[in-house]
Amino acid sequence: MPASNIQTDPIFTDEERDAVYRCIHTRRDTRGQFTPEPIADEVLARILRAAHAAPSVGFMQPWDFIVVKDKAVKGKVHAAFEKAHAEAAMMFEGDQRDTYRTLKLEGIMEAPVGICITCDRSRTGPVVIGRTHLPEMDLFSAVCAVQNLWLAARAENVGVGWVSIAHRNELREALGIPDTIHPIAYLCLGRVTHLYDKPELEAAGWLPRMPMADITWFDQWHQQAGDEPLLKLL
Amino acid sequence: MPASNIQTDPIFTDEERDAVYRCIHTRRDTRGQFTPEPIADEVLARILRAAHAAPSVGFMQPWDFIVVKDKAVKGKVHAAFEKAHAEAAMMFEGDQRDTYRTLKLEGIMEAPVGICITCDRSRTGPVVIGRTHLPEMDLFSAVCAVQNLWLAARAENVGVGWVSIAHRNELREALGIPDTIHPIAYLCLGRVTHLYDKPELEAAGWLPRMPMADITWFDQWHQQAGDEPLLKLL
Repeated sequence: MPASNIQTDPIFTDEERDAVYRCIHTRRDTRGQFTPEPIADEVLARILRAAHAAPSVGFMQPWDFIVVKDKAVKGKVHAAFEKAHAEAAMMFEGDQRDTYRTLKLEGIMEAPVGICITCDRSRTGPVVIGRTHLPEMDLFSAVCAVQNLWLAARAENVGVGWVSIAHRNELREALGIPDTIHPIAYLCLGRVTHLYDKPELEAAGWLPRMPMADITWFDQWHQQAGDEPLLKLL
Repeated sequence: MPASNIQTDPIFTDEERDAVYRCIHTRRDTRGQFTPEPIADEVLARILRAAHAAPSVGFMQPWDFIVVKDKAVKGKVHAAFEKAHAEAAMMFEGDQRDTYRTLKLEGIMEAPVGICITCDRSRTGPVVIGRTHLPEMDLFSAVCAVQNLWLAARAENVGVGWVSIAHRNELREALGIPDTIHPIAYLCLGRVTHLYDKPELEAAGWLPRMPMADITWFDQWHQQAGDEPLLKLL
């Protein structure tokens, strides 16, 4: 590898590091806080470039980005959500069903921009470095693009909500996506009135934040002496 | 939602934003650049907390983290890689096979720390908000934890390499992971001698970086007038 390909100033300062952590820890799934203010193309371009900088298995870059601003298209996505949401409610029982119905789970119509990230599993041919033994690695690459986009948006003071309550084929139909392409995420983007301190499902008491000592192991699954110094720092 | 749950100082400065973008754009998959210098527990704890701050479907937090420092355990992971890597080489033809064999694709033994991120698909019961119609959403949540970890490590000046060339069951066996748990990623972490400017597969000419105008669409799949102002900014 020629020396010119080496990052010449690779070290992050404490301030830069702290900004990254602030981004990671204050990122929220945004549903009910969107304002109609448009997102400037310059901002949208930076956010999309961040998604495109995600790691991808065998450098296949399997993603496409569909930027949705058309109200009729959003309406179709929203109809797909509404149908699946009604079905989903019936899967919960008793109090959980009542609680589920009170939750605001999407902002499809309110968010000025929707972005669908997809995965083209055949993009670079049938054999992909790193996908030979774990076939879902291409889907996972596209998910890394989602997370990059989400963090970039947070740093741009733009909220993002991931809508996953929809039949995949109805999402395809709403956006004209062929059967051969795997929709990974439909994301709602917009400026927000506010962001919450905690995930809304945590604040609503749906589930607690798991203590890290309950999910951190050493060398083997569920192996933990209990006095590992790392545990005290988590 | 009580007002006390609102982020009181949510706005990112341009400097903070730029640090996040620098992190996203200079993150690399690290294979051959690890030094034996240990990673301090304080650093490891911050990196793991960043992973735990990932978004998760229905707030299920399906991940566990296995921190691997034991040489014998690393040896088992490496043996799983070696076997799959030899199988993988046979899937490429001609020149590609020769090139594939020259690529350094992992740093399992050199990296002082390995971290396996898993997904417990049954963690919070059979019905999960947001997973009702897209069953792989829990796997995708665990992938978001991988990407958070990767970016946090970059901001800590720690390199990360994702090893995906292994049979899943052999990875399970090496780490004592039960069949009911889905291993998502085995990650190699360590201080590095240097980081490259570009992904190594791009620099090696394996595949080119895709132009964003070839993968960005408007309102519908493959819909692009060609004069959208956003396209000029990508």
